[in-house]
Amino acid sequence: MTSTPVARPDEVRRYNRASLLRLLHVAGPRTRAALATELGLNRSTIKTLVDGLAESGVVEERVPRPGRGAGRPSLLVLPQPQAAVVLAINIQVEFVAIALVGLGGQILGRNSWNLHQRTRAPDDVITHVIESTTLLAADLNLRPVAAGVSLPGVVRRSDGHVHEAPNLRWTDVALGQRLTSALDVPVVVGNDAELGALAEHLRGTARGASDMVFISADIGVGGGVIAQGMPLRGAAGYVGEVGHMVVRPRGRSCYCGNEGCWETEIGEAALCRALKLPEESTRGTIVAELRDLSHDSRGWLDEFAEWLTLGLVNVVNLFGPELVVLGGLFTGLPAPVLDKIGEQVRDRSLVSRALGGVRIGTSALGNDVKLLGAAEAAFEGVLDSV
Amino acid sequence: MTSTPVARPDEVRRYNRASLLRLLHVAGPRTRAALATELGLNRSTIKTLVDGLAESGVVEERVPRPGRGAGRPSLLVLPQPQAAVVLAINIQVEFVAIALVGLGGQILGRNSWNLHQRTRAPDDVITHVIESTTLLAADLNLRPVAAGVSLPGVVRRSDGHVHEAPNLRWTDVALGQRLTSALDVPVVVGNDAELGALAEHLRGTARGASDMVFISADIGVGGGVIAQGMPLRGAAGYVGEVGHMVVRPRGRSCYCGNEGCWETEIGEAALCRALKLPEESTRGTIVAELRDLSHDSRGWLDEFAEWLTLGLVNVVNLFGPELVVLGGLFTGLPAPVLDKIGEQVRDRSLVSRALGGVRIGTSALGNDVKLLGAAEAAFEGVLDSV
Repeated sequence: MTSTPVARPDEVRRYNRASLLRLLHVAGPRTRAALATELGLNRSTIKTLVDGLAESGVVEERVPRPGRGAGRPSLLVLPQPQAAVVLAINIQVEFVAIALVGLGGQILGRNSWNLHQRTRAPDDVITHVIESTTLLAADLNLRPVAAGVSLPGVVRRSDGHVHEAPNLRWTDVALGQRLTSALDVPVVVGNDAELGALAEHLRGTARGASDMVFISADIGVGGGVIAQGMPLRGAAGYVGEVGHMVVRPRGRSCYCGNEGCWETEIGEAALCRALKLPEESTRGTIVAELRDLSHDSRGWLDEFAEWLTLGLVNVVNLFGPELVVLGGLFTGLPAPVLDKIGEQVRDRSLVSRALGGVRIGTSALGNDVKLLGAAEAAFEGVLDSV
Repeated sequence: MTSTPVARPDEVRRYNRASLLRLLHVAGPRTRAALATELGLNRSTIKTLVDGLAESGVVEERVPRPGRGAGRPSLLVLPQPQAAVVLAINIQVEFVAIALVGLGGQILGRNSWNLHQRTRAPDDVITHVIESTTLLAADLNLRPVAAGVSLPGVVRRSDGHVHEAPNLRWTDVALGQRLTSALDVPVVVGNDAELGALAEHLRGTARGASDMVFISADIGVGGGVIAQGMPLRGAAGYVGEVGHMVVRPRGRSCYCGNEGCWETEIGEAALCRALKLPEESTRGTIVAELRDLSHDSRGWLDEFAEWLTLGLVNVVNLFGPELVVLGGLFTGLPAPVLDKIGEQVRDRSLVSRALGGVRIGTSALGNDVKLLGAAEAAFEGVLDSV
């Protein structure tokens, strides 16, 4: 429980260097003066660190674009994307996307392909990921130093073992181990909602919010929690499965064995039912239908919105976040519907009332949220050793 | 995110000293050799630390009781209870208990009194706590250096502000501030289930479990979570209110404004209904009725057990603990009922299946669990400076 830290002087230097890199990586270019202030270090320490990093090509210093201020502009310290490149892999039910992401979070190159029943088997996905990575890395002349994988499933974080990814129909796949040996770099595998939460926390709507929950609907519904600035995980690194919170006893059967899981009431199929679309409608059809929904037809969403609200009240009462970010299909809900959900959650949650009102927002990172989360998971182990 | 620590040499010594004290405090007397092994420090560092602590009377070394082993027994290092004493306060709906707790967790003296409608007002409780503490401290000739308060309510941890304690009928009470100025020591105020979780984690059934949830039923139902060895809190230090997770939409009305909260289905009133007792039955009556329940009457508990199970499936799916500890009234449930609940939760929770089976246990600390939790909350700030 005691959190006072301990280290030798060379560890102090490494720690300061990693903190500086992390700040540049997550928050973007800054002057030396800003780095000193934000890191609480003195100017001479910053000078030594920046000079060292510039010498090894990890950062460069550049005159900023001319602004309105008078006088000589301060040099900006910029992270050099090529100094540390990670591979991000986003495995979804309909497609796989991979990207090489540089220091600073910029996507340097990407590739993606559709999945069909036929090509969704673990062996096929793994083979295709490796081939595609090799091509992309050769194309860009870059070598990733670590990889992060996002996947809609129950994942043991410690070794990247996929216990179950029901919508992919994967069971017990040693994904972490297999990719580590094929790619020959450290590989982190995470649940997609967990990594979405990480991306929104570091680069999206939840920047600066140290207690937040990300809830995303695709085919399934998942959630990730950041508590006191750190990702919340359970035993063996498993994250919670918020989509399998039962909200409607004796409701629809869920593949998990329960009835009335939140996922069965607010997942893609439930949204299709609300919109009077066939349950197998494509993402494009659903999003277009939501966009074009007439004022009079918005009532179709009432029951769907009520189940979303009820589950969000539970989530807020259980985790006490300052902000909930909705992702995936939820970002397509009409603004008045989202506003009403927010009001209701603030009104009906005891913990929100204690907090003076939880905020409900939508993802700012769009389709890249899980890819960027996978990249950040990979960067976690990298910034100490760049 | 980088967690590598930084410190100066004197901080290192203080950190090692606090770690050693924490180990003795939580885990009990140990030989120097055991301390060296468990803390990963060398023998000479341990010697310096123990000698220093013995000199200032914080520990003493003693020959252990003769065992079966041959040869000279190693000296045991024992924490001296009087070296650091905290005040623990447990405010419940029916009573208040206070205790002076010494280093090592021993209760050195205690007092308690019943509360009635008339004496439950914040002013009366605070006055009585202060008077009673003064008497107890004088009696024992001890001066507490910090205080911890446990309370069934929504508490802002940062300053001990009680937003709402519905069963006490308290709203917006600056409890932390008022006790701090009256007692003239640092005061930590926590939600009772949160502090129960802390006590079970450090001294009870959940010792050694770094991911656990404590769920307790008294009049209300509360829960506390330890995740990766640390108490889980939300924004502003508020903890979740698991009792207000809606499990039964359109169920009974709850004072929180929702219908079908878990608390309305598994709290004291629900247990009375299940046992065909009047809802205002005393704790003693309920416990006796549970104890004497005939085999044939156990079926009365079926519906109650189903709601308990359903909520526990949700809790396990949301937090992914290795262990759930049930406290309060739940400890009185017949063993076969508890066993069946455990089986069902393991069977019906996706996350439990991934984990290879969550364990469900009952509190080992009995009525003292919240008092001991309050003491541990107070000790958190103390062990660094003993």
